[in-house]
Amino acid sequence: MEDKFSFAKQLIKEASLFIKNRMQDNLSVQIKSNYDDLVTNVDQETQDMMIKRILEHFPDDHILAEEDDVRHPISDGNVWVIDPIDGTVNFIVQRNHFAIMLSYFENGIGQFGLIYDVMNDQLLSGGGSYDVHLNDFTIERYHSKPLDRSLIACNSGMYLTNDKGVGNLIKHSLGVRIYGGAGISMMKVMTGELLAYISYIQPWDYAAAMVLGEKLGYVLLTLEGEKPDFETREKVIFLPECELEMIKNYLFK
Amino acid sequence: MEDKFSFAKQLIKEASLFIKNRMQDNLSVQIKSNYDDLVTNVDQETQDMMIKRILEHFPDDHILAEEDDVRHPISDGNVWVIDPIDGTVNFIVQRNHFAIMLSYFENGIGQFGLIYDVMNDQLLSGGGSYDVHLNDFTIERYHSKPLDRSLIACNSGMYLTNDKGVGNLIKHSLGVRIYGGAGISMMKVMTGELLAYISYIQPWDYAAAMVLGEKLGYVLLTLEGEKPDFETREKVIFLPECELEMIKNYLFK
Repeated sequence: MEDKFSFAKQLIKEASLFIKNRMQDNLSVQIKSNYDDLVTNVDQETQDMMIKRILEHFPDDHILAEEDDVRHPISDGNVWVIDPIDGTVNFIVQRNHFAIMLSYFENGIGQFGLIYDVMNDQLLSGGGSYDVHLNDFTIERYHSKPLDRSLIACNSGMYLTNDKGVGNLIKHSLGVRIYGGAGISMMKVMTGELLAYISYIQPWDYAAAMVLGEKLGYVLLTLEGEKPDFETREKVIFLPECELEMIKNYLFK
Repeated sequence: MEDKFSFAKQLIKEASLFIKNRMQDNLSVQIKSNYDDLVTNVDQETQDMMIKRILEHFPDDHILAEEDDVRHPISDGNVWVIDPIDGTVNFIVQRNHFAIMLSYFENGIGQFGLIYDVMNDQLLSGGGSYDVHLNDFTIERYHSKPLDRSLIACNSGMYLTNDKGVGNLIKHSLGVRIYGGAGISMMKVMTGELLAYISYIQPWDYAAAMVLGEKLGYVLLTLEGEKPDFETREKVIFLPECELEMIKNYLFK
């Protein structure tokens, strides 16, 4: 397994160099489902490059990835989950504040996860049998903090409409933050900058954070309080497991 | 003047070291006007240190600063404007994403401004007769971008209530971002990551950005389209001057 984890850390750095090089050129931007659901040629090329490298090294493994409907079921065999650029709007507009996410599962059990904030060179890696590190620095398990001394990151639309009561929770915190990326937001949960992250996201948006978070005392649940299905887009919260009882005062109703 | 600008750059780095050292200790947090309007002992001590250093070097100059009602009128003589820690909630909760802001005015005319993102070591400095730099990198004047390919940062409460129509503007952009600090948000406007920043803020929150922004093609106006008064808390927008006509389709009504 050490071999695959080392390979993953090397691959994610390689993918980041690939993205940085391609950022010099003009981006070709396409609309997917929605005016703000965008994809660029760099998303697709980066995913292709990552899949090619994984299958060269591990030809019997499978892939679940964002672009081009690459959707191997998470519970079947050795599965790599790839989000080549998470926070595509930030990537296009800000040229900053986006992440590459990669994780590896065996028969549905997360073995390790990686989230890499490319432009700020912050790699969160670990989970499964590996300690979680931010670059070379070991991340500690969550220690309880009061809600009214904490910040919560949220999808802007869900915040605006108080979707499923998320605004009621946020109202009792110190405030909301909106960063525009699942990867960078959940990294901020795990480094202690945020208490929780709430959004409407896909399996490749949450897979790496789930594996990393489990090691540190965090869980990812749907807003019905269930495990996510790893198949569809769902409204989820990523939060410390020991705060679940407190959060139930506001959500899961 | 070169002397005062060099002094200011040195002082802001000194203040940042002071803050980083004091962050090792427990913070003493106090509530000002509101549950989320907080001040720490470090805010006050940093301001005291900065005022002391300015008056040692320039004993005839005056101060307009956040804490302790230090409020010399901006239009009278040589005035230094200080915000020792902008984004105090981020400072307390995240230990990150806050800024020191410093600017200098002569009879109401901005001579230079500085915004320093302490933990990420990003210093935006210049304005007046000085080019604007981000650390050693020269920042260029704003180049026009379409609203629907831009992001806007906004105060969370104003976004939630569509205060003065800000939500209508944001709805026609690619999305909203909420970072929790005027300084770091307006720095992102000037580096091109955001089109505009909207909030309800005080003179020390906007003085430095106004001086820096003027050099780069940005203006700071109230949501009535007027110049700010440098005396009271006002609802303002910081945006590219050449986009004013476009913005008038949504605001200033």
